[in-house]
Amino acid sequence: MKIVIVGGVAGGMSTAARLRRLDEAAEIVVLERSGHVSFANCGLPYHLSGTIADRDDLLLQTPEGLRARFDLDVRVRHEVTAIDREARTVTIVDLATGRESVETWDHLVLSPGAAPFVPDVPGKERGHTLRNIEDLDGLVAALDGTPGGPVRSAVVVGAGFIGLEAAENLRERGLDVTVVELADQVMAPLDAEMALRVADELTAHGVALELGTSLSAVGEHAVTLADGRQVDADLVLFAVGVRPDTTLARGTGLAIGPRGGIAVDEQQRTSDPRIFALGDVAEKTDAVDGGAALVPLANLANRHGRRVADVIAGRPARSGVTQSTAIVKVFGLTAAMSGWSEKRARAAGVPVGVVHTHAASHAGYYPGAQAMALKVVYRESDGRLLGVQAIGHEGVDKRVDVIATAMRAGMAVEALADLELAYAPPFGSAKDPVNVVGYVAENRRSGLDDALQWHEVAAAVGGGASVLDVRTSEEHEAGHLPGALHVPLDDLRSRLAALPAGDLVVYCGVGQRAHVAARLLRQHGRRVRNLDGGWQTWSTSPAGRAVGVLV
Amino acid sequence: MKIVIVGGVAGGMSTAARLRRLDEAAEIVVLERSGHVSFANCGLPYHLSGTIADRDDLLLQTPEGLRARFDLDVRVRHEVTAIDREARTVTIVDLATGRESVETWDHLVLSPGAAPFVPDVPGKERGHTLRNIEDLDGLVAALDGTPGGPVRSAVVVGAGFIGLEAAENLRERGLDVTVVELADQVMAPLDAEMALRVADELTAHGVALELGTSLSAVGEHAVTLADGRQVDADLVLFAVGVRPDTTLARGTGLAIGPRGGIAVDEQQRTSDPRIFALGDVAEKTDAVDGGAALVPLANLANRHGRRVADVIAGRPARSGVTQSTAIVKVFGLTAAMSGWSEKRARAAGVPVGVVHTHAASHAGYYPGAQAMALKVVYRESDGRLLGVQAIGHEGVDKRVDVIATAMRAGMAVEALADLELAYAPPFGSAKDPVNVVGYVAENRRSGLDDALQWHEVAAAVGGGASVLDVRTSEEHEAGHLPGALHVPLDDLRSRLAALPAGDLVVYCGVGQRAHVAARLLRQHGRRVRNLDGGWQTWSTSPAGRAVGVLV
Repeated sequence: MKIVIVGGVAGGMSTAARLRRLDEAAEIVVLERSGHVSFANCGLPYHLSGTIADRDDLLLQTPEGLRARFDLDVRVRHEVTAIDREARTVTIVDLATGRESVETWDHLVLSPGAAPFVPDVPGKERGHTLRNIEDLDGLVAALDGTPGGPVRSAVVVGAGFIGLEAAENLRERGLDVTVVELADQVMAPLDAEMALRVADELTAHGVALELGTSLSAVGEHAVTLADGRQVDADLVLFAVGVRPDTTLARGTGLAIGPRGGIAVDEQQRTSDPRIFALGDVAEKTDAVDGGAALVPLANLANRHGRRVADVIAGRPARSGVTQSTAIVKVFGLTAAMSGWSEKRARAAGVPVGVVHTHAASHAGYYPGAQAMALKVVYRESDGRLLGVQAIGHEGVDKRVDVIATAMRAGMAVEALADLELAYAPPFGSAKDPVNVVGYVAENRRSGLDDALQWHEVAAAVGGGASVLDVRTSEEHEAGHLPGALHVPLDDLRSRLAALPAGDLVVYCGVGQRAHVAARLLRQHGRRVRNLDGGWQTWSTSPAGRAVGVLV
Repeated sequence: MKIVIVGGVAGGMSTAARLRRLDEAAEIVVLERSGHVSFANCGLPYHLSGTIADRDDLLLQTPEGLRARFDLDVRVRHEVTAIDREARTVTIVDLATGRESVETWDHLVLSPGAAPFVPDVPGKERGHTLRNIEDLDGLVAALDGTPGGPVRSAVVVGAGFIGLEAAENLRERGLDVTVVELADQVMAPLDAEMALRVADELTAHGVALELGTSLSAVGEHAVTLADGRQVDADLVLFAVGVRPDTTLARGTGLAIGPRGGIAVDEQQRTSDPRIFALGDVAEKTDAVDGGAALVPLANLANRHGRRVADVIAGRPARSGVTQSTAIVKVFGLTAAMSGWSEKRARAAGVPVGVVHTHAASHAGYYPGAQAMALKVVYRESDGRLLGVQAIGHEGVDKRVDVIATAMRAGMAVEALADLELAYAPPFGSAKDPVNVVGYVAENRRSGLDDALQWHEVAAAVGGGASVLDVRTSEEHEAGHLPGALHVPLDDLRSRLAALPAGDLVVYCGVGQRAHVAARLLRQHGRRVRNLDGGWQTWSTSPAGRAVGVLV
């Protein structure tokens, strides 16, 4: 049996290594267009700043090493230019010599990845992308000094995960960095009020943001924005996003899915059952709605490589859906998410409940505790967890991973209250932030409390509701919602008679004191809703920013 | 409705606050024997070193604050001395004045906690315990200088969670610290090879360990061990464990469970349905076998307080089992676990599979990655996750919490392979340590690989198996199993003929290269088992320590 694998990074190399472990006799050929296999593509941005000081640390394997250990025939700088499905062959060009050759196969595995999208603007050829070691070497050479003079400024186009990692690392290197993004927020998969926290961190570290705009031209030392303004840019990096590298697949007539990736079944088979596709080039199945998804993540590529090897070796292979768990470090901040955002659920017409919390990363009395903004989205009908977003510092990754695991298990949001998480003061709280989300949701779903979101306050007030701030005077004076009445929680029982008639929107710092107030008021016959996430959410939301923080 | 709550720390105060939110009209009386309610009992050890510098940071609430916010009648230094179930009253002694009074109740809630066990040895009255603020104040006063002179040495009796936290903090304060423990390992719930890592960390930080022994006497500046040796001890702290404080419950004839705690049903009701018990005094239900368990953890106390309030208020309350997730910081190390250990499963006669891994906390090429020892125990019959233990640094808490969540969901060990955890180089690996456990288990359970544990090597060798080390020469020379043959993995294909006949036990550093070797050997018809966790597990196990690390 002979297997030819196109692409020798995450997905392709996982396939090859697993296949050898399953079948000592198989002939396995890996063809990689770039000069390196199994390099650490997720680590590339960190070499720009020197955080990963040695470039060679990013090279995890060599063809020689893979030959010795796995008896693999790995050829770098070899590009597959055509597939003949009838003859079961591929045409290969040795990029060093230009020589063409042909290899036969019994199974063909396509793992060529996804190519960075480069917008079609004048001067685009001056821009860099960051996909492989060659790209990195080019960027580093440019940063080390070009014929045009020293590199002092950079424009990163695109505020997604790679764009922000690149912006951070270029800034850490000392450059003036501007991020240009077509959307009106950074990190498009996040909801707006969560993304604002990331934007704040970027600007706090001196990264300029140009949101809601695009490039119209790339010059030698500046770019031109859509509105004609110039932004200094001795170096331009395109990180707008990636597109599945489907040239080969289209050339041989394999089915392409609705998202533009290669369509595969649960065994990663393409429309030709002898040809498999995986990694960034292949479409995935979304865990929430079962739809096609493009999720260019290394962990999925590795996992699917294992699956392809199992299928080729005739072993049973589990099918899998993806919830697109992702994380990014942005200077001192961590932003992570899994599953659906609120806006995605609303766009899909799925009625959802939303919980925002701002609990401490660990016990407040133990040094170093920091609040994290945690947002959980669940299906209104049955409470099923649909998504989580978290922005903060220590422990953000942990909470997202725990909730991602609960999502994978199909848990309802209330089940988060019962999770037994490891607690000691340096690590968490007796009521972990994850538990708190469960408690809040349980209160809502059982009818004890009623919430409204930051984007619903204006409508509530327009409908005649009064806004009640139950925080301390100090907190109130430091900033509050427009027109809010102020009655500190501990005075509320004695001042019930002084409250205005009609609906109430009650809020505090994060929602906890407001819950106590709301329960008290409800038991006195008042109709009251608790502003979800309180001042901490509202003041960092588009609504809060629109009126300024101090009102 | 009038509710009397005995005990005003985690469980009692959670009950009271939740009850008020559910019922604005209830009369709620909280009686606390010590001088403080809602103090941070989990934080007490950290004041000994000054890590938590201000003692008052440990005082989270005051009776006055609870009156203002929750309209609670909280009385500190009030001890309940008797319960009259017929009359529905409690007898209370005001410890400040000695005055006795009686309160009626409609519902009585018992949350008096658990008392530190003090062994009955001569001089025991000189020893301290650490249960509440008064104990802490006593310890700090003693540390600050006693009539007997400066305190330079301390003996901590008991190497459980609190004992180790206390030992660390006394050591951080600069004392010579010895931990005396009856068992032959620290942290009894851990398996021996995991506990050794914690013991190493203690000794590396200058804490002396006296394992497998006990105190026979406490003197003024030394203790006497069972074998007659003296150990310097200007201060002695008993942290042997806690026992449910069931005096009141026994006094009024409430049923006591098999573990010596108050027996409760799924609604936390005692044998008298008007009386509830929760927190450290009440028995819990083990998640694995449904048996009675004593689990003195604050997070369970809080959760059960909520349950008791719900039941009293007539709301539906979910029942709950406990998997006893726990964590402790020991100097630079973190040790955490959830569910059953291997030894517990073996003692219960449950056939289990075991996976040890030593994966990096995050991508190896990103600075700061450190290996963590992770051990997962699953039921042999169906793969169901039974327990996890982890020892290491960064990210240990995360992995235990993720696996604890998977356990709660009833997942099988293979499902860990499919968990989508947040990956970027600073936070994890494309194959997270949790995923790796799933992969390893899947290989075993599907018959691709066969493992043996560190405690099974001697028997295998005794039965004629040869031990094969497939690491590099450098690794082999730095230390190896007794009598191991050495063939580096990359040379194995060419040296197959030179291997001895008969069964093989193959090992590498952590088990990954050995898996590749084992697959290769199996396909050449060899019977081979992979030493689980490799050299990293074996060399830090009792087996490895027995022969010395360098063999």
